[in-house]
Amino acid sequence: MRPRAAAIVGIGQSAFSKHLGVTEAEVAGTAIGAALADAGLTPADVDGLCLYDIESTTVGDAATVLGLDHLRFFSTHSHGGGSYCAVVLHAAAALAAGHASVVLAFRARNRGRGSSYGKSSNEGGRPWQKIAHRISGFYQWQVPFGIVSPVQEMALIARRHMLDHGTTEDHLGEVACAARSHAARNPHALQREPMTLADHHASRFIAEPLRLLDCCLESDGGCAIVLTTAGRARDLRQRPAYVLDGVQCVGPAHHHPHDWFVFDRRRWMAAAAERLWGSAGVRPTDVDAAMLYDHFTLMVLIALEDWGFCAPGQGGPFTENGALRGPGGRLPVNTHGGQLSEAFIHGFNNLNEAVRQVRGTSTCQVPGAELVFVAAASSDPYGALLLCR
Amino acid sequence: MRPRAAAIVGIGQSAFSKHLGVTEAEVAGTAIGAALADAGLTPADVDGLCLYDIESTTVGDAATVLGLDHLRFFSTHSHGGGSYCAVVLHAAAALAAGHASVVLAFRARNRGRGSSYGKSSNEGGRPWQKIAHRISGFYQWQVPFGIVSPVQEMALIARRHMLDHGTTEDHLGEVACAARSHAARNPHALQREPMTLADHHASRFIAEPLRLLDCCLESDGGCAIVLTTAGRARDLRQRPAYVLDGVQCVGPAHHHPHDWFVFDRRRWMAAAAERLWGSAGVRPTDVDAAMLYDHFTLMVLIALEDWGFCAPGQGGPFTENGALRGPGGRLPVNTHGGQLSEAFIHGFNNLNEAVRQVRGTSTCQVPGAELVFVAAASSDPYGALLLCR
Repeated sequence: MRPRAAAIVGIGQSAFSKHLGVTEAEVAGTAIGAALADAGLTPADVDGLCLYDIESTTVGDAATVLGLDHLRFFSTHSHGGGSYCAVVLHAAAALAAGHASVVLAFRARNRGRGSSYGKSSNEGGRPWQKIAHRISGFYQWQVPFGIVSPVQEMALIARRHMLDHGTTEDHLGEVACAARSHAARNPHALQREPMTLADHHASRFIAEPLRLLDCCLESDGGCAIVLTTAGRARDLRQRPAYVLDGVQCVGPAHHHPHDWFVFDRRRWMAAAAERLWGSAGVRPTDVDAAMLYDHFTLMVLIALEDWGFCAPGQGGPFTENGALRGPGGRLPVNTHGGQLSEAFIHGFNNLNEAVRQVRGTSTCQVPGAELVFVAAASSDPYGALLLCR
Repeated sequence: MRPRAAAIVGIGQSAFSKHLGVTEAEVAGTAIGAALADAGLTPADVDGLCLYDIESTTVGDAATVLGLDHLRFFSTHSHGGGSYCAVVLHAAAALAAGHASVVLAFRARNRGRGSSYGKSSNEGGRPWQKIAHRISGFYQWQVPFGIVSPVQEMALIARRHMLDHGTTEDHLGEVACAARSHAARNPHALQREPMTLADHHASRFIAEPLRLLDCCLESDGGCAIVLTTAGRARDLRQRPAYVLDGVQCVGPAHHHPHDWFVFDRRRWMAAAAERLWGSAGVRPTDVDAAMLYDHFTLMVLIALEDWGFCAPGQGGPFTENGALRGPGGRLPVNTHGGQLSEAFIHGFNNLNEAVRQVRGTSTCQVPGAELVFVAAASSDPYGALLLCR
């Protein structure tokens, strides 16, 4: 893509909590209001909207609640946690194409107390909990065998990773501990108590080999960003976080345990990574900080491998010697605490932290950070972004 | 947007039928294969995918079935029949931004025999049939009062249009008759028997004042298109249908009867139309043929008004004297028979016909057609496109 054609110029968030006690629309509105204020803009400036397709506050709802009466671009994106880089990329494409001049994107979800499984809900529930009478699509290959939740899926992939590559519980635990060490510096993080590898290893199994502390939080909260063209970004209040480049990727596989190992996932992931770095003209070693979708610790290791920060299978050893710990590690990862320790906003809080690193305002700031890498959920059709000064 | 940055270079469709007897994925594959062959391309050329978010053949499914192993852009779009111009616009933006070089878009749906209401289905069903235990969102304002289907919603809007503007049954009937007159020339159309205004008026009410012949067909079938950059389009097999310009629009209203008349819909629609024509540098009178989303006859009149082909409220009189009938009418509309008489593929068959008009290959060809207007479903957040030689 055309480098630096678009920039993130505003970020905002609601409080994060186990229970906010307000609707998801109100959570969205709070985050959006904060992002617009941060940018020095108002709803009257907004003419574009990018959402997850599972967002409960729809395009029409957002237009109504915010009084957006001249929207001329809107899009929704599938694949849950795999979406958030796509949302930014498509907003950037729309800005570059002149389809919009100011694009708003957000994710709001109240999941702190809502059960994810076993009951129907129209408020922020996961798609498969709506499957009531029969199982179709890829779930038919796993649900009848008892694999009904993401943690069960990821547990199978984690066990295989351990067997194939010698990944250890210490490696998984270090992802969680690094995140917690960052959360301890972030007043907005939900979990700030110190965590050791021993704490991690003592937490109960949710789906072996994944323990409670390998899993992201379930929380209420929302985050929003505002994007505009590079030209307009220069005149606004904040230092712009330019979208240097980005890519989406999906392979000829369903990204679930029943075929995770059947297809040659490495081949198409390597091609996607090569496209990104080749097009952007930078290398993984140029990256100052990385925000990697951390719904489960294992998937951070997978992302490090997928995007070329280490060799295939070497995500575990990469974490050693505090490599992920900011601000001084080899590659500070999720310097806000991530979804493991700050809040689980389907990746959007990782995005806000990426912008803070570019601005120089993180509570775990990497000095002089100029290039931040962001990756969506590696268990889904997903993608990655590079944000820069 | 940048005019003519992208073009539709391939179109394809499955057979249309009341019952094809194959899965929606197979219908999609048939249409996609035809579109790629039409363009002289193969699945190996495809690196982008744009879908409706309610498409049952997902991004992952399409990648698997077609063996697409280097997708780098994919998006899904909400609002059912309101989506199809957005799908083209976002593909064009992705091409212009360099996020993809060949984008595939399709819609496949088997609805010829499937019930739209009253039972749960995971294959192409409408969103609200999934609402099982309680009603949330805007449906809570109408479902408890008995308004559960689109034809009931549109009936209320049609009745109000008749009362406010003097629109008559003859006006509605002429939309259906003009479509049928075109379908009679189209060997792929499902309904080709001649239709008179008397036939229309004699058909039974579905939801008064809308009759059976005011409603689109329910059918099985799929359509697909292939888009690429203008530079590459010139070297391919077919005359390119360039995307001259386009716009999406949504107002601060839910686009359903409970607030259709509450908000000042005309104000934001007029702004959207002004943006489109102003940006494209052409006027409604320059348009050679129009493809208007025709789920119900009334909505064709609304689209004519919304997009400035006539004054507000004057959609009815605009249809008089065979204005919509091709190839010689004032503004030939849905020259393939549309969704009223060809098949109901959620707008995608209208898109294919727009391309045929630009190519000069319609069975109801407007001689020398150079500019074709396309509008999505005016009852949803929607949009419009201009395709040109």
